[in-house]
Amino acid sequence: MYQQNRDDLLIRLRRIEGQVRGIQKMLEDDRYCVDILAQISSIKAALGKVELSLIESHTRGCVADAIRTDQGDEKIEELMQVLKAHLK
Amino acid sequence: MYQQNRDDLLIRLRRIEGQVRGIQKMLEDDRYCVDILAQISSIKAALGKVELSLIESHTRGCVADAIRTDQGDEKIEELMQVLKAHLK
Amino acid sequence: MYQQNRDDLLIRLRRIEGQVRGIQKMLEDDRYCVDILAQISSIKAALGKVELSLIESHTRGCVADAIRTDQGDEKIEELMQVLKAHLK
Amino acid sequence: MYQQNRDDLLIRLRRIEGQVRGIQKMLEDDRYCVDILAQISSIKAALGKVELSLIESHTRGCVADAIRTDQGDEKIEELMQVLKAHLK
Repeated sequence: MYQQNRDDLLIRLRRIEGQVRGIQKMLEDDRYCVDILAQISSIKAALGKVELSLIESHTRGCVADAIRTDQGDEKIEELMQVLKAHLK
Repeated sequence: MYQQNRDDLLIRLRRIEGQVRGIQKMLEDDRYCVDILAQISSIKAALGKVELSLIESHTRGCVADAIRTDQGDEKIEELMQVLKAHLK
Repeated sequence: MYQQNRDDLLIRLRRIEGQVRGIQKMLEDDRYCVDILAQISSIKAALGKVELSLIESHTRGCVADAIRTDQGDEKIEELMQVLKAHLK
Repeated sequence: MYQQNRDDLLIRLRRIEGQVRGIQKMLEDDRYCVDILAQISSIKAALGKVELSLIESHTRGCVADAIRTDQGDEKIEELMQVLKAHLK
């Protein structure tokens, strides 16, 4: 699971939280829409990294363990449902 | 510009900020990766709505005004650069 | 509209058509999944360029003309529906 | 690997090939941009299904086999690189 890189994930998420607050400030300061949209893109990219990190630790952890104990089908099916929601 | 729907955008962003904090709590509580990933999907969808709202108000405001005064080229070019970063 | 860059769009689409046929050949030749997936990514990127080109010529053409004749609302609403389907 | 669902994948890809030809026809017939863009969205969605099917058979095949024989690390790393290119 993600325990090994939890601290890294928490740091990333606090940074994202700060970015979301930053966009609120930009709106209050009447900042130009295009600059705000650029910030949103950067938040989505940062969230994408958190996503990929979680998918990787899930695959290396829960999914791999289930495969080793011949219970992989269900976990792979679940992983595919996750990917379905996250693929372009 | 977005002044007309600023309040709505601020409400959405505060909710997103709360969701990002919620994910930090899920990590601290050792919650299952797949549940956390579902939350991230929901945050990205919420950010997508903020994006579309900003693109709409920008198009109705700045871009349309520039087109009416025969200065649309530059604003349309800028809008395309925004879309390039946001299209699947 | 897109008449000015139709030839370019047709060339791009014929290339994409060839790439799709290429993937069929890769499947028939038992090529490695990861190589096939890389080809699909490249097709989606090529389609993205066709999309952006069409959105640009539509915005510069139909949408701008409608705005100049004070009939922009409907066309901008239509453009937003298009973007909704195409935004990440 | 994908051998079990190759026929299904080939049928989907031939359909996609036909859709790409269809868009060329729409351009030649001066069809409305918004209708053409809707077709491109449908092609990208169809490609997404081929992608997910390939990722699933790859995960159930090559990746699971490698995990069972304690050689999973490299295959999981490779899978993550694939997902990186395909995640929103």
